[in-house]
Amino acid sequence: MRYYISDLGQYVGQKIELKGWVYRTRSSGKVKFLELRDGTGVVSCVFFRGDCTDDVFTRFDELTQECSLKLTGTVRKHPKHEKVYEIGVTDFELIGTSKDYPISPKDHGTDFLMDNRHLWIRSKRQHAILKIRHEIIMSVRDFFDGRGFTLTDAPIFTPAACEGTTNLFETKFFDEKMYLSQSGQLYAEATSKAFGKVYCFGPTFRAEKSKTRRHLIEFWMVEPEVAFNDMYENMELAEQFMEYIVQRCLKNRPDEFKTLERDISKLAPVVAPFPRLHYREAVDLILKENPAFIVGDDFGAPDETIISSKFDKPVFVHHFPQAIKAFYMKEDPSDRGYAMGSDLLAPEGYGEIIGGGQREESVERLLLKIAEHKLNEKDFQWYLDLRRYGSTPSSGFGLGIERAVAWICGLAHVRETIPFPRLYGRSYP
Amino acid sequence: MRYYISDLGQYVGQKIELKGWVYRTRSSGKVKFLELRDGTGVVSCVFFRGDCTDDVFTRFDELTQECSLKLTGTVRKHPKHEKVYEIGVTDFELIGTSKDYPISPKDHGTDFLMDNRHLWIRSKRQHAILKIRHEIIMSVRDFFDGRGFTLTDAPIFTPAACEGTTNLFETKFFDEKMYLSQSGQLYAEATSKAFGKVYCFGPTFRAEKSKTRRHLIEFWMVEPEVAFNDMYENMELAEQFMEYIVQRCLKNRPDEFKTLERDISKLAPVVAPFPRLHYREAVDLILKENPAFIVGDDFGAPDETIISSKFDKPVFVHHFPQAIKAFYMKEDPSDRGYAMGSDLLAPEGYGEIIGGGQREESVERLLLKIAEHKLNEKDFQWYLDLRRYGSTPSSGFGLGIERAVAWICGLAHVRETIPFPRLYGRSYP
Repeated sequence: MRYYISDLGQYVGQKIELKGWVYRTRSSGKVKFLELRDGTGVVSCVFFRGDCTDDVFTRFDELTQECSLKLTGTVRKHPKHEKVYEIGVTDFELIGTSKDYPISPKDHGTDFLMDNRHLWIRSKRQHAILKIRHEIIMSVRDFFDGRGFTLTDAPIFTPAACEGTTNLFETKFFDEKMYLSQSGQLYAEATSKAFGKVYCFGPTFRAEKSKTRRHLIEFWMVEPEVAFNDMYENMELAEQFMEYIVQRCLKNRPDEFKTLERDISKLAPVVAPFPRLHYREAVDLILKENPAFIVGDDFGAPDETIISSKFDKPVFVHHFPQAIKAFYMKEDPSDRGYAMGSDLLAPEGYGEIIGGGQREESVERLLLKIAEHKLNEKDFQWYLDLRRYGSTPSSGFGLGIERAVAWICGLAHVRETIPFPRLYGRSYP
Repeated sequence: MRYYISDLGQYVGQKIELKGWVYRTRSSGKVKFLELRDGTGVVSCVFFRGDCTDDVFTRFDELTQECSLKLTGTVRKHPKHEKVYEIGVTDFELIGTSKDYPISPKDHGTDFLMDNRHLWIRSKRQHAILKIRHEIIMSVRDFFDGRGFTLTDAPIFTPAACEGTTNLFETKFFDEKMYLSQSGQLYAEATSKAFGKVYCFGPTFRAEKSKTRRHLIEFWMVEPEVAFNDMYENMELAEQFMEYIVQRCLKNRPDEFKTLERDISKLAPVVAPFPRLHYREAVDLILKENPAFIVGDDFGAPDETIISSKFDKPVFVHHFPQAIKAFYMKEDPSDRGYAMGSDLLAPEGYGEIIGGGQREESVERLLLKIAEHKLNEKDFQWYLDLRRYGSTPSSGFGLGIERAVAWICGLAHVRETIPFPRLYGRSYP
């Protein structure tokens, strides 16, 4: 029988054994305190001379930050706080020592903390972020699994470069040249014709040689795809999805938001429907504050902030110019020159978190696009087959998990959103 | 409002619209039949002259295998079968044509089917396999999420080679040499010291230049790790886990097992506890049937079959010789020369599906092991830190998803267990 701190409420009055690590110690004469953490929570353990032997009371002084131990004691309700418990210690056994633990409560530089990421994750703040990350991932899966989507994961080794090779990691697959996937979308389109509603969810890679607060080299992306959906149904799916994720985190992770000092009043309004702006409407807003913006261009981070600052929930921008969008995106036949896609911009300056839209379903038009984008037609034979055999309207989107975590947690940098980040210039530990 | 075939029972007597693809057609004079599939199921659609116009009745002949269409009709109970429905068609609209669909009911060679994997997945058998794969993945996540484990995904770009570089994909991370992950275990050990109970679950890579029915180049692996667990608690976790997965598939996927003609009486006995054999006991069994086996060696596939054929449920073999195991595995202090790990062999000749065990927790012994295995100590500084700061006993295991899918579905080859397999000599589509 293993006892965990998260379950202490079930054992009030009982003598139990806990295993964990020392988070902090303090002592004041005849009472000594130790905060024990075991990954499920932190509990105050009280050493009171008389409850424990003199030997145990003395050995307390051997306990250092992050040493591991087995501890025996009685579970008690906290004298003042509801649903808080403490342990009246009777004995303990040191399991693993910890001499000069490198991370102390004092401030450390970012490089030092990143070098010690394997230890840094033990701290309360990092712990809270990664718990919210897990909640977000569970929400993603439950949302799709509960709505009849089939998970069909895409391969990482991909022969074709669907958005140009600039930011692709080229690698060798035995004697062949291949790339590490930057999106599972094309594969999800194939499986959506078999399963109707699908999603893929795995790591994706972009070889961007830039250090920004929003880019990871290796990041997780979830990409649903629905056969027969048009771009408007796609936006409805995306807004229901984001509402579900945010509201579930608010419900299930209040303690973690508190640890992060996140202003959750900023998340409460994230309820569908979200506002929608045509690219032209968005440009009008941008030009008022950034007159240098060139109409027809994609938005920069400051432009996205101009738009999102006008709303208290995420906002869609749809119908971007066809010229700046990927080859597979469908041009709107009733709005020439504009693509049937949309980006979703998160509030508070977090920028684009979702990109998606409706795919070109005609094999002839797709062939023209492949030529225009100077892509190799041979690489896309199987993708063209999806239009040759029972083509349908089809729409989907991609959500970058780490950007969602950064926004929901209110973080300044995406590097804290994943257990072991890979950034330009950072591949350790 | 979108209607799906899986929900037809709710709409009996109503006129609805379905969107999907033609699975098969047949006609007999004044009645014509079409089997429509939409990814959630297959339904018989009946064209009866009088119910539909002459024009609709005539246009039926334009419908070819895998063309897509929108169809209107009334939902009816099947005259004979319980919980089966059919559609009395009144109208339809062809959406995407399908001329000379390459996969017909006749037998095709494996290479042809693999080249057309993007279409092959539309067939009933592949559909059933991938639905069971999804059920297995959902079971994996629900098992751990429901038991207080935290998901902490490991990076794909890894600087260190934990089991030698022979089967590693070397790749460039900008100017650095790195590898594609073959296991997230070392990282899960780090996060288990922060969260207690963790798992990682993502794609892993082995550059094996061999074509066997059990190896993929790119495969998904789930790896739980529990701080303070010993090798015996680890086996208990693994057997509860496998029982949960198998029993849940049996409960939720009876139709898919039927499609696959899987003998589910072979899966029913998969209930914990599983039998356990010491390596020496397993060797005794092997030697009776394979006298050429060299004591001290790892098992070959035929040796695993000898053992697993003796049991009707998965069987653990524990305490393999230390010499053939990875550097991080703990030697049993009370059984010198043997490692505190175990493999789980699936029945019916499917061989090893789980490998795991207890990790060496002493920094001094781990340093010796790293030197013995001629690994680069510098690469493992962060891993050694886990022993320097609050080391604990720690155990975990890895389950290869595709091998589990192959066994549970009763497949002859692992290539059908994943939407887009990557094999030696196979990287398309």
